[in-house]
Amino acid sequence: MKEIAIGIDIGGTNTNIGLVDREGDILHQDSISTMADGNVNDFIKFLKEKLTVILSSHSDITIKGVGIGAPNANYYKGTIEYASNIRWGEYIHFKEAFAQQFDYPMVLTNDAKAAALGEMVYGNARGMSDFVLITLGTGLGSGIVVNGKVVYGQDGFAGELGHVNVKPDGRLCGCGRRGCLETYVSATGLKRSLFKMMVEETDGSDLRNISYTDLDPRVITEAAKKGDSLAIRAFEYTGKILGEKLADTVLHTSPEAIFLFGGLVEAGDCLLIPTKKHMEKSLLKMLRNKVKLLPSGLMDKNAAVLGASALVWQEFA
Amino acid sequence: MKEIAIGIDIGGTNTNIGLVDREGDILHQDSISTMADGNVNDFIKFLKEKLTVILSSHSDITIKGVGIGAPNANYYKGTIEYASNIRWGEYIHFKEAFAQQFDYPMVLTNDAKAAALGEMVYGNARGMSDFVLITLGTGLGSGIVVNGKVVYGQDGFAGELGHVNVKPDGRLCGCGRRGCLETYVSATGLKRSLFKMMVEETDGSDLRNISYTDLDPRVITEAAKKGDSLAIRAFEYTGKILGEKLADTVLHTSPEAIFLFGGLVEAGDCLLIPTKKHMEKSLLKMLRNKVKLLPSGLMDKNAAVLGASALVWQEFA
Repeated sequence: MKEIAIGIDIGGTNTNIGLVDREGDILHQDSISTMADGNVNDFIKFLKEKLTVILSSHSDITIKGVGIGAPNANYYKGTIEYASNIRWGEYIHFKEAFAQQFDYPMVLTNDAKAAALGEMVYGNARGMSDFVLITLGTGLGSGIVVNGKVVYGQDGFAGELGHVNVKPDGRLCGCGRRGCLETYVSATGLKRSLFKMMVEETDGSDLRNISYTDLDPRVITEAAKKGDSLAIRAFEYTGKILGEKLADTVLHTSPEAIFLFGGLVEAGDCLLIPTKKHMEKSLLKMLRNKVKLLPSGLMDKNAAVLGASALVWQEFA
Repeated sequence: MKEIAIGIDIGGTNTNIGLVDREGDILHQDSISTMADGNVNDFIKFLKEKLTVILSSHSDITIKGVGIGAPNANYYKGTIEYASNIRWGEYIHFKEAFAQQFDYPMVLTNDAKAAALGEMVYGNARGMSDFVLITLGTGLGSGIVVNGKVVYGQDGFAGELGHVNVKPDGRLCGCGRRGCLETYVSATGLKRSLFKMMVEETDGSDLRNISYTDLDPRVITEAAKKGDSLAIRAFEYTGKILGEKLADTVLHTSPEAIFLFGGLVEAGDCLLIPTKKHMEKSLLKMLRNKVKLLPSGLMDKNAAVLGASALVWQEFA
């Protein structure tokens, strides 16, 4: 009987599920709808049905536990609090709801923290005791690792770097405040910045033919890779703001490396070069040229699923 | 024979020395000139002469080790690097120089990190595993504690919050960059802000009779306590900038409390109220009203000497 952890990553649209062994090999991968507009109990019933089907085709395994990553999840309390893209409720007692349907031991954490753990156990941060992982999705998430441990802080909400302030009266954020980092640096932030460039510059671009509503941020990444100068400018602007803010983050925990994860990173140097340039320029003299800026080592795998599974070995080993 | 740690705090002008027992009682306290313009070897010789005199009057003790806090000191390397107020050299191999004169085991750390350790072991942070201490002196120093340990990061320079950016083209800092937090929030920053208020506002104030050169920042604290409206405005401005930046720091490590230490804190509510107000206003909804903002519990004692001595028990126990 092979010991298996079930790693689950709950996103705004889809929930990814993996059966993962201790070495980080994913034996089975699947996904279900998050049903983000519904009810948490209905979602967990649906998850149970799906897992029953998956597990029925794996008779040679024993389940060690379930690790779950979700937006705004609280590791200490097992809750999901004020997650803007999951509307099961403002304050969801997820762990309680889970325990009513499942007998498996379960541990819940924030999705970006799960990804940081995945990077440390199975990715490019292996052997590092101090690093930061930034996830660039619809918003900006982060996991900070200090002395080999993911930082949770007093209440489980450490590492919410998507909400550090960039500009006092800047762009409106989903959290209700203005000028948060994720309104500039994220898939959505990139789209907003592209439209800013359209207004301020005169570069010709096919992207000018697409409405704000219709423009998928992935199209900007593709355009940048093909040399569209407006898209490249939008990435440069994104990299400048990210680089300047990462310099401040370095002053907090002095990480060995900062990893970038998510679809935006596929733009490669269009994002990495300006981010690195502005980070170095903004760093204190004695901290320059010391911090690696790297893409995640789990870009082609499911970092959050792997990280969630790693939590199981950490908690229930 | 009572076991004693020698705690030493090297400042820009004076070096404080304490013989401290395990309970944090200071048996003997003294100070010497830092001779900051001289040579590190001469300073250590001078320190040795002084210690010989001090120890000759305490025959009933045994020395466990020496803990030293100094600006820009590197815990890992035993160096003092680019300290603007100590000109023994740009890159000082302090630990090596010390070992040539002394046989005691010695541990060196940054002065603010020593103060954070002092706060944790002997002050108001007793029992806390996640907190931040801000020292407000000529500059702004900080010590960040995560999971009960002072954060050093990859190279020993974590927690350099004095240099997070407040304004892209703001005030010139000693580090050569513009807009660092300590150019606004520190004794010197307060003085600069008072002069800004003199220019922008029309409030009458005795402080208008003093030149920039002659104005000692302590006078501003005294004036604020007596109700001088210009001084109060300068503190409000200081508190606004500090509060906004502390909100960003909370997003990094989610501390249980933030402690303020140093002469500026004597202004009491003139500083604490605006800092608290702007921190809460700037915090993410789910983090509001959770983080205590408190004066250090070691204001009347020598926190850096106590913290440096605490390092001895931690390292050589």
